[in-house]
Amino acid sequence: MVQTQLERARAGVVTDAMARVAEREQVDPEFVRQQVADGQAVIPANHAHDALDPMIIGREFATKVNANIGASPDTSDREGELAKLHTAVHFGADTVMDLSTGGGDLDAIRQANVDHSPVPVGTVPIYEARKHVDGVADLTHELLLDVVEKQAQQGVDYMTIHAGILMEHLPLTDGRKTGIVSRGGSIMAQWMEERGMQNPLYAEFEAICEVFREHDVTFSLGDSLRPGCLADACDEAQYAELDTLGELTRTAWNHGAQVMVEGPGHVPMDRVRENVQRQQDVCDGAPFYVLGPLVTDVAPGYDHITSAIGAAIAAEAGAAMLCYVTPKEHLGLPDREDVRDGLAAYRIAAHAADVGNGRPGARGWDDAVSEARYAFDWEAQFDLALDPERAQAYHDQTLPGDNYKEARFCSMCGAEFCSMRIDQDARDGDGEMESIDDETDLEEVPAAEVNRPPVGTHEGAEVPDLPDVLKGVDGVTGDD
Amino acid sequence: MVQTQLERARAGVVTDAMARVAEREQVDPEFVRQQVADGQAVIPANHAHDALDPMIIGREFATKVNANIGASPDTSDREGELAKLHTAVHFGADTVMDLSTGGGDLDAIRQANVDHSPVPVGTVPIYEARKHVDGVADLTHELLLDVVEKQAQQGVDYMTIHAGILMEHLPLTDGRKTGIVSRGGSIMAQWMEERGMQNPLYAEFEAICEVFREHDVTFSLGDSLRPGCLADACDEAQYAELDTLGELTRTAWNHGAQVMVEGPGHVPMDRVRENVQRQQDVCDGAPFYVLGPLVTDVAPGYDHITSAIGAAIAAEAGAAMLCYVTPKEHLGLPDREDVRDGLAAYRIAAHAADVGNGRPGARGWDDAVSEARYAFDWEAQFDLALDPERAQAYHDQTLPGDNYKEARFCSMCGAEFCSMRIDQDARDGDGEMESIDDETDLEEVPAAEVNRPPVGTHEGAEVPDLPDVLKGVDGVTGDD
Repeated sequence: MVQTQLERARAGVVTDAMARVAEREQVDPEFVRQQVADGQAVIPANHAHDALDPMIIGREFATKVNANIGASPDTSDREGELAKLHTAVHFGADTVMDLSTGGGDLDAIRQANVDHSPVPVGTVPIYEARKHVDGVADLTHELLLDVVEKQAQQGVDYMTIHAGILMEHLPLTDGRKTGIVSRGGSIMAQWMEERGMQNPLYAEFEAICEVFREHDVTFSLGDSLRPGCLADACDEAQYAELDTLGELTRTAWNHGAQVMVEGPGHVPMDRVRENVQRQQDVCDGAPFYVLGPLVTDVAPGYDHITSAIGAAIAAEAGAAMLCYVTPKEHLGLPDREDVRDGLAAYRIAAHAADVGNGRPGARGWDDAVSEARYAFDWEAQFDLALDPERAQAYHDQTLPGDNYKEARFCSMCGAEFCSMRIDQDARDGDGEMESIDDETDLEEVPAAEVNRPPVGTHEGAEVPDLPDVLKGVDGVTGDD
Repeated sequence: MVQTQLERARAGVVTDAMARVAEREQVDPEFVRQQVADGQAVIPANHAHDALDPMIIGREFATKVNANIGASPDTSDREGELAKLHTAVHFGADTVMDLSTGGGDLDAIRQANVDHSPVPVGTVPIYEARKHVDGVADLTHELLLDVVEKQAQQGVDYMTIHAGILMEHLPLTDGRKTGIVSRGGSIMAQWMEERGMQNPLYAEFEAICEVFREHDVTFSLGDSLRPGCLADACDEAQYAELDTLGELTRTAWNHGAQVMVEGPGHVPMDRVRENVQRQQDVCDGAPFYVLGPLVTDVAPGYDHITSAIGAAIAAEAGAAMLCYVTPKEHLGLPDREDVRDGLAAYRIAAHAADVGNGRPGARGWDDAVSEARYAFDWEAQFDLALDPERAQAYHDQTLPGDNYKEARFCSMCGAEFCSMRIDQDARDGDGEMESIDDETDLEEVPAAEVNRPPVGTHEGAEVPDLPDVLKGVDGVTGDD
């Protein structure tokens, strides 16, 4: 019987997936094996996911970003869903979650996503299960297990399992400002309230472990009781569930299944680090996969930014993967540009943390962009940018001509006030500032001769005139 | 002779401005006076700025945000500039800097800004001075002083003075990847290189202090040698200039002038706090006014986000004011929507830090938004939002009808999967989850009866159907 990455790592085997991951992360394969064997990292790679290029999630590796895709209630067309997958991967998602809640042929869509995705595909099986019954209370143990097993057979690489929310936890949420904000968590809570029984995903957890072990599906233990606002952060309910997640982590490991643990949500800046450290402690270092967290509740329409701040801090503190949030969070269904904005914000957060943590190789990217910038090599700056299309589009909005791709300025400051142009003009041929001798004879350096007007830096006929488009722009100048 | 806020605070006087500031910040007026007297906070308030509503900048007060406005080289129309001022104030700028480098009647524009602005107006006098001469080397001590004095007479509340960059510092920049990236700093460097003399703003610093004392102009000591990329952060050049800024801070205080100090720029996440602590130490607690910092160089087109991450961390560490960065940074002239995006990102950073620091009253805003959200009071959520227009526009993009303003869901998850709707349905009339008795007789709670289908939550004829517009949306679903 084929074993999970975790089982093979424990047996001392460096799998093909581990070797590939080591290559991508530029680390030693044996280090990958050890991290997986110790449960400190996961390689979500269902045996049936043939299109996968393996990747790894763990605090010792580059921080990863997840994007959510999936059919909405009234769109469930296969080509449309594959287009979303393409968008997410194009803009840099390391994993995608198919969160379909649509009423169409979700099996076919899920299979198409797995068949075409080079990145791990995650799901939340409770969503499909919910679609099979009239009411939440009609969900049964058997149905839940059947859905999990079918999706595992389809090749899903990781699944959010809301097994940590227990009936004992529910009264702990009574004083909250925003109750239970995890969709799966609220469904399990309603089920428990109406059926008067323990969480079936908890009750059947060992059976799920066996399914996961057979197909090598990685657990993403859902944080059903994550805070939905700053006021509810770090409360008794959240931390009680976290303790259960720690217990479930160890149970899954005992079954040879890989595990990561989901985290909040909405957390004030000063308590983000505490959340990461507590999860790492309670869950014995299993990778932490956080949603944001948002560091303020006041900015609907900009929650990709409120949460990117928290995500960067969480990643610096040791979170291994960041689930993106789009500008439409709390307000509506995101479109393609929202996905792009969300992914950009989160790739920034992930990379900033990797740089802050001194991850080998991370800073080289920044240095390459900075060198292109100082060289006024606009094409290289665009090519190297996190989002080349947007960088060029923004530049070209005011200076579209090809000649401006070699200009020693942009429209932000204009040629006369471009600091990098002035800085370079002030240096000698070796790029050095002269050590100044205050006794210099000023008569020998007549100002009028040594100073070159800005257009002079572009030499004669090649000088790009300030374009008409810039003349009417309702703009503001840059920093000083 | 009218004295500065600093001189009157030292004399034990609570000025009208201090009283107004205390009211706005909800603190004791005597505390304001003490902070100003000790140089730990500034109230930029030129005696001639009649339209001003006084505000305070200091680490013990709410974090402030500055927006840059100003005429670009080919737009210098007075009404256009006033429109920019209006935009900046409308979207929440606490101060504005008029960074005009245009060729028009900048005196008239500057006067109009001061006459109409309820927030402090800052300038960078070297820009105007530069416009008066053919070449950088033609700048003279007299011209610089004349420009400073004229702008002080016009009512400008604070000025960036690039006095900290000395000729001894210039060779320290030789190994940098991006040289000198402050516009004013690069001009002073070129002047020193070409004239072979010490920085005239440094040489004339005491004369400038006297002008500032007379009109109560606040110093914003420019950080000419701030890093322009991660590679140049925290280098010898930056910190050598900072030492000079500390010396200048004490000189200005000796003259009775108010002082804040400008800071970087581009700094890796793990060194942002160090920058704030070092400035606070070297400059004896004078307020720190930072530009970002950007925590990565790789994302042109998204630098409002890269820098909001750094700005939030800087503010949490003690920075008093944040100079915004727009998405067009490094690429071009920002337009109105860029100003809006930049201000939103920075107000988020400022508020997140205030919450993180437990600033009295800060968290109340978050709680109010969260309560409106849980109550599905969409109108209140929009009204309370940092950018009400955008929050509503994003919501209404998929659900524009008035009836959706009372709906217990939005298009992000839809009615069936809205966690807050499910959570509330699972609670009793007191909003509580029942403590579950596992012995409940399931025959008495038939699932089909207790479960209400999602549309049932909207009661009969008032039920908002899922709108057509949602049916074709190329969207993705939210988090789990």
